[in-house]
Amino acid sequence: MDNDIKLDLQRAARIGFDEAIFCSGKTVAHIARILDQAQERSLPLLLTRLHQTQFTELPEHHRSRIDYESVSRTGFFGSPHPSRGEARVAVVTAGTSDVSVSREAVRTLRYYGAPSLEINDVGVAGLWRLLDRVEEIRRVPVIIAVAGMDAALPTVLGGLVPGVIIGVPTSVGYGVAAEGHSALHSMLSSCAPGLTVMNIDNGYGAACAALRVLRAIGSA
Amino acid sequence: MDNDIKLDLQRAARIGFDEAIFCSGKTVAHIARILDQAQERSLPLLLTRLHQTQFTELPEHHRSRIDYESVSRTGFFGSPHPSRGEARVAVVTAGTSDVSVSREAVRTLRYYGAPSLEINDVGVAGLWRLLDRVEEIRRVPVIIAVAGMDAALPTVLGGLVPGVIIGVPTSVGYGVAAEGHSALHSMLSSCAPGLTVMNIDNGYGAACAALRVLRAIGSA
Amino acid sequence: MDNDIKLDLQRAARIGFDEAIFCSGKTVAHIARILDQAQERSLPLLLTRLHQTQFTELPEHHRSRIDYESVSRTGFFGSPHPSRGEARVAVVTAGTSDVSVSREAVRTLRYYGAPSLEINDVGVAGLWRLLDRVEEIRRVPVIIAVAGMDAALPTVLGGLVPGVIIGVPTSVGYGVAAEGHSALHSMLSSCAPGLTVMNIDNGYGAACAALRVLRAIGSA
Amino acid sequence: MDNDIKLDLQRAARIGFDEAIFCSGKTVAHIARILDQAQERSLPLLLTRLHQTQFTELPEHHRSRIDYESVSRTGFFGSPHPSRGEARVAVVTAGTSDVSVSREAVRTLRYYGAPSLEINDVGVAGLWRLLDRVEEIRRVPVIIAVAGMDAALPTVLGGLVPGVIIGVPTSVGYGVAAEGHSALHSMLSSCAPGLTVMNIDNGYGAACAALRVLRAIGSA
Amino acid sequence: MDNDIKLDLQRAARIGFDEAIFCSGKTVAHIARILDQAQERSLPLLLTRLHQTQFTELPEHHRSRIDYESVSRTGFFGSPHPSRGEARVAVVTAGTSDVSVSREAVRTLRYYGAPSLEINDVGVAGLWRLLDRVEEIRRVPVIIAVAGMDAALPTVLGGLVPGVIIGVPTSVGYGVAAEGHSALHSMLSSCAPGLTVMNIDNGYGAACAALRVLRAIGSA
Amino acid sequence: MDNDIKLDLQRAARIGFDEAIFCSGKTVAHIARILDQAQERSLPLLLTRLHQTQFTELPEHHRSRIDYESVSRTGFFGSPHPSRGEARVAVVTAGTSDVSVSREAVRTLRYYGAPSLEINDVGVAGLWRLLDRVEEIRRVPVIIAVAGMDAALPTVLGGLVPGVIIGVPTSVGYGVAAEGHSALHSMLSSCAPGLTVMNIDNGYGAACAALRVLRAIGSA
Amino acid sequence: MDNDIKLDLQRAARIGFDEAIFCSGKTVAHIARILDQAQERSLPLLLTRLHQTQFTELPEHHRSRIDYESVSRTGFFGSPHPSRGEARVAVVTAGTSDVSVSREAVRTLRYYGAPSLEINDVGVAGLWRLLDRVEEIRRVPVIIAVAGMDAALPTVLGGLVPGVIIGVPTSVGYGVAAEGHSALHSMLSSCAPGLTVMNIDNGYGAACAALRVLRAIGSA
Amino acid sequence: MDNDIKLDLQRAARIGFDEAIFCSGKTVAHIARILDQAQERSLPLLLTRLHQTQFTELPEHHRSRIDYESVSRTGFFGSPHPSRGEARVAVVTAGTSDVSVSREAVRTLRYYGAPSLEINDVGVAGLWRLLDRVEEIRRVPVIIAVAGMDAALPTVLGGLVPGVIIGVPTSVGYGVAAEGHSALHSMLSSCAPGLTVMNIDNGYGAACAALRVLRAIGSA
Repeated sequence: MDNDIKLDLQRAARIGFDEAIFCSGKTVAHIARILDQAQERSLPLLLTRLHQTQFTELPEHHRSRIDYESVSRTGFFGSPHPSRGEARVAVVTAGTSDVSVSREAVRTLRYYGAPSLEINDVGVAGLWRLLDRVEEIRRVPVIIAVAGMDAALPTVLGGLVPGVIIGVPTSVGYGVAAEGHSALHSMLSSCAPGLTVMNIDNGYGAACAALRVLRAIGSA
Repeated sequence: MDNDIKLDLQRAARIGFDEAIFCSGKTVAHIARILDQAQERSLPLLLTRLHQTQFTELPEHHRSRIDYESVSRTGFFGSPHPSRGEARVAVVTAGTSDVSVSREAVRTLRYYGAPSLEINDVGVAGLWRLLDRVEEIRRVPVIIAVAGMDAALPTVLGGLVPGVIIGVPTSVGYGVAAEGHSALHSMLSSCAPGLTVMNIDNGYGAACAALRVLRAIGSA
Repeated sequence: MDNDIKLDLQRAARIGFDEAIFCSGKTVAHIARILDQAQERSLPLLLTRLHQTQFTELPEHHRSRIDYESVSRTGFFGSPHPSRGEARVAVVTAGTSDVSVSREAVRTLRYYGAPSLEINDVGVAGLWRLLDRVEEIRRVPVIIAVAGMDAALPTVLGGLVPGVIIGVPTSVGYGVAAEGHSALHSMLSSCAPGLTVMNIDNGYGAACAALRVLRAIGSA
Repeated sequence: MDNDIKLDLQRAARIGFDEAIFCSGKTVAHIARILDQAQERSLPLLLTRLHQTQFTELPEHHRSRIDYESVSRTGFFGSPHPSRGEARVAVVTAGTSDVSVSREAVRTLRYYGAPSLEINDVGVAGLWRLLDRVEEIRRVPVIIAVAGMDAALPTVLGGLVPGVIIGVPTSVGYGVAAEGHSALHSMLSSCAPGLTVMNIDNGYGAACAALRVLRAIGSA
Repeated sequence: MDNDIKLDLQRAARIGFDEAIFCSGKTVAHIARILDQAQERSLPLLLTRLHQTQFTELPEHHRSRIDYESVSRTGFFGSPHPSRGEARVAVVTAGTSDVSVSREAVRTLRYYGAPSLEINDVGVAGLWRLLDRVEEIRRVPVIIAVAGMDAALPTVLGGLVPGVIIGVPTSVGYGVAAEGHSALHSMLSSCAPGLTVMNIDNGYGAACAALRVLRAIGSA
Repeated sequence: MDNDIKLDLQRAARIGFDEAIFCSGKTVAHIARILDQAQERSLPLLLTRLHQTQFTELPEHHRSRIDYESVSRTGFFGSPHPSRGEARVAVVTAGTSDVSVSREAVRTLRYYGAPSLEINDVGVAGLWRLLDRVEEIRRVPVIIAVAGMDAALPTVLGGLVPGVIIGVPTSVGYGVAAEGHSALHSMLSSCAPGLTVMNIDNGYGAACAALRVLRAIGSA
Repeated sequence: MDNDIKLDLQRAARIGFDEAIFCSGKTVAHIARILDQAQERSLPLLLTRLHQTQFTELPEHHRSRIDYESVSRTGFFGSPHPSRGEARVAVVTAGTSDVSVSREAVRTLRYYGAPSLEINDVGVAGLWRLLDRVEEIRRVPVIIAVAGMDAALPTVLGGLVPGVIIGVPTSVGYGVAAEGHSALHSMLSSCAPGLTVMNIDNGYGAACAALRVLRAIGSA
Repeated sequence: MDNDIKLDLQRAARIGFDEAIFCSGKTVAHIARILDQAQERSLPLLLTRLHQTQFTELPEHHRSRIDYESVSRTGFFGSPHPSRGEARVAVVTAGTSDVSVSREAVRTLRYYGAPSLEINDVGVAGLWRLLDRVEEIRRVPVIIAVAGMDAALPTVLGGLVPGVIIGVPTSVGYGVAAEGHSALHSMLSSCAPGLTVMNIDNGYGAACAALRVLRAIGSA
């Protein structure tokens, strides 16, 4: 089945992203073959949605080359890109349950050399927690706002700061919130002007969007 | 078809509400027959969703007995209940497009003798507009919060004031907001504790819920 | 990851609710760290959706301080608020399968010092079971009505008693009832005037809404 | 386009129903051609969803042969089947807005010679209106229960009477009730045992189902 | 928690059905307490959705009194009603995967003393399998038609036989068929006149509906 | 705005289809400009979803060059492709209301020179109407089956004939059938092997799919 | 009702956007009052979703001050912001039916002084039309990609160019494409890394998002 | 329960397909009984969705007669049909996660004697991977295009090659892509003319559709 795998080696040249491997639903054997191919070509790789059990079952020689973080379920295979100075992206969450998604964004940014400012648990049901941090958030050009349920955080932020806002709805919650569609629709229909939105739980994509902005600015 | 109509005359005795007539989808002839029956029994009636054209086409002797308000599409047939003192309910909207719904609540409250405090256009994308009014809102025991699209207003209010909050999602908006399901789900999945919710655009129901609370308090 | 947790200590002052911890989806380690923080500050906490297995895996010194109830999956960490006299809230269920949700409401009320009257298994397919209890229900100012499937219970109640009614749809059932949307929509579109509704299975939220009413009345 | 029309002449022999013509969405010219074919063969026809304007625009020689009823939008072309004794079907509605649907059932039954008992506006939010009529309803073997919104009527009936119950959800209402899916799901997930359900607004189908039962009984 | 259980003992008198216990989602302890109550009162009970593992974990003294059938997951606790002559109901399935649902109907009928004719695997994609059995099916007054996916079976039957047809959509299938909504909608929008429909997978309800018809006929 | 229009002139060379103009939602002025461009280049065009009123409002010099058919709302601008022998495609409908969709397929085929066999009103609720025509249908290699509501027609056909079957769900019907999703899901989940499906009401697309097959066969 | 209107005058200072007036659903009288208020304060305003008929019915003294464009239904009331040099944003559409949405983005950008590059009708079903323009598109830092139906355009672009991509799904199409949810979901689940998405038909929001990026870059 | 199974032995004669056994949801005992019946009649069978664990638990004498492939979860029981020359079908996937579905198509084709050309991982976010293979794909008359998420692959293909295209959406992905509806709707609303679509994950059905085409061509 090795001919099923085609690493898109020109991608970095074309759009500036190395290939990332979405591990959810892949067998450990399949992931191992991808790592073999990357190793042969001395390619670093970003692994996303790599569950703890998948990581644990990888061959030792692969596992030892991976910098794994369990909250975000991400792994850096080989060396990530060198870090470029101070944080230009804020990654903000509404609740502690959103951290697995926000951390995926933080780790993806770090892999591509972009440090970020993490601000957690500032949902608008306790408004002062957010207002205490607004000045800090205003100072960065890009904000990733991660929230589930009513997802009011990006709307409030969008009315307070002029930066680029990338909303990431999360699948946190139950009842009508289950699966994140409620949060997604909330963000898409926000009355704050110019809020952009990602797929549910897509921290990786939000980081890539932020990187596209940073490159346009000339900071990445 | 007169035997199709059965005014529930015991309702007021049982649960404290006169019968209200939901006019949308009813023919003018049908509404006129209901008014005839009410007049015979000297019953006042609250008419909701009475479109301007329906009102205009009613027989003059009915029309002259109706206090009609076109924004809310409500009519008072006969004398409404006498007003009881100061406002104990705040009716708050996120945007000017929500006013047709909030006004239905205001008019229903007025019909039952409960004055209310109207605060419009304080959606959270312009947060200071709301914060300027929070102290005023804190002073009433019941708040009806009317909002469409992302419907973040009741969540923010729910974290700021201790009163009873009744959220009314509106069908304002387009795309995923169309029809109000996005606002409804946002309110239902709010992280503010103890927020209650009504059907989309149901200003009448919100007022009835507020009246149930006022009666429990002993103010209505 | 300790900086991920921000207990909202001002919440009680602002809106009268201590922070409650929604445990579903949180790791045991995460819950334990929250309990550590609460213990340092001598804060009592209400724990909701704390599964039996999560409870069992907590460190003994935490577990021994928790009053745990398995049907509702709630725990009181530290001392709950002192009880205030007689029951002012009725918590009514349509079927025995709704009890895990109704019990969450009962326990939340008890945590905040509000005793309640539990009436179970009085769904309207066996109407006399409900009619036998109506007089008892009429005597309290607030009713939490918990029902799944066709969720006709709150509608029938809403036409029989004048009190505040808070409907809680449950995810009981299969086919079109699965996940509770059928019950939710039934309650939202009820023809009984002034019925308020919570998210599916949200017994905790219903209790908070009831507490907001009790406070307005001056009983809590 | 005449070869587009194929009256199913054997249907009555096979399953006991003449062909009925669903007129909604058909042009007046198309309906007229169908009537021409029926007239040639001396076939009576039941016309359903025939809007007032369609009826008015039909050629005079067709119109004069149609017994038209505007609430139900039904027409009898030619002679309906002779009536067979007393009413064996009760057609019960929750509200006056449901009458256009219930009347379609009543008229379809009448076309096939089955008189029925109409009981309107007995929705369960005003429970005593229904309880007053229960004994009457118990005496017929088949009940068609027509209701929109929360559609609690058939559930309550199903727990009170032993007869065959055919629920017809209606598209009455707004917000989550709009289009009748809320009522449909409510009926399908009813806890009353043995409730059967039709498509939204399908009064015609409910009558046909009732006729199948009457035939099995030997009354039709 | 024993006060959570209220066996509806008058149900049989009122509508002719003993109470049935829906076991899915109930703990084994809960089911055992219900059986204790039934045993005290010498009541027979029908148990539905009783999973093999639940059955196995019941106390031996209960298990020995249960006639359990694993395909339908039904149990008869105590003696079912005596059988009344020949089969008056046909229970027909489209595919072998629908048998767990159809068998629930067959077993419920048997519990109430009504034998039935089982005809399996006659879906219309292999039309002759069905046509071979049509004459047999025509001879009974009530047909329960069980089908998933496109659920064309009841439509074809509805055009071939004059009896009462009760459609039961099943959750068999994947993709758009998953969960049975596709089959449900197919049956509800059938062009065969007078087809009635049950909730997805509701074999028990279909049997109850059939029993209501049989009683009207005077055969049950 | 002329630079908004880019006729894809290479399309025919690449995939064998001239460009077709979907007129729904386009202004008459916009359509006229497209026709101007086509006329300059002496290109024939197929116009779909061209409403009668749009057609009537086109400039006379365009209108006179269009062969318009009102049931299908299609127009041939300039000369269609020459006809190639006998019918190799059957276009079959379940009901007369499906003809506007099936006729769009018939006209598209004719535009591209492929005559077809039209068979209307053979829905499976009256099975013998279909069985009478099966032998005729078996003789063509491609069948387009057009049906709304329960859409059982293609499933039955798929079990009777070996040819290529292209199902087109239609938006005919009301309640759960409204908008055609019920028919679409029915076709997609059909148990007949190898049934392919098009978007709702997409007669044009079905014809294009048939033409791709005819070309593969060498008949087009 | 003038107290319903609260122009958010601090918005520009806070987040850099003047208030825009969403005119859909507002009465002409309401819009006129807003313009009065703006004129008193000498504020320019951007009007969106201003239908031709609304525009025509405005008082002449307002109409003469509005630069109206009918395809996008936008109006500039007073002087727009001065233009800042060359185009830094490309606005790309898949089909000519998407132009009403893309033009709203173009006009919003122009109002805020940002010229843009319009590229229309380059949907990927005719791939070469897009590939011909890719080099041009690569040269700008921000791309707004507008597409309905399958909405494959932004995915293909996202794999070809490194810039910031803002996808706008449109409600173009019928059947499953109707209302734009199909296009929305397609964009949200795109496999191209870092694609951001707006609500359906939200050209205005896309332009605001682009302006946030341009400001971060220092070009706006 | 053996009478539940009715192998449709005439199916091959009628429409050219042996019966295939869909094993998902069937017990191992049930599958074994089907294999017994097939063996008695010396019938070969295609087994689909046969999970590894089901296969492993089959009796050894059945297992040894099955050619099992684990990625596609298919088994050939007995001898498949002899192979007929060169590949006339291309089976193309967008990503490696789609291979379990595409392989089901490949294996079904092989069972019926039709070799196929597998081309994997050529999704359009990396467009050149696809363009490199287009000439190869153009040479076969039938293409099965398998893709999840935005499912842009068949649209791009449909604009590049003239062959018959059968799209198979897959349930790969998360958030709005979860369950494959996003991919399904994308394919159904594709702007490429004449694209046909199968149910989500239905590789088997796609192969059957391809075989219907090959038979029409005379290659199968």
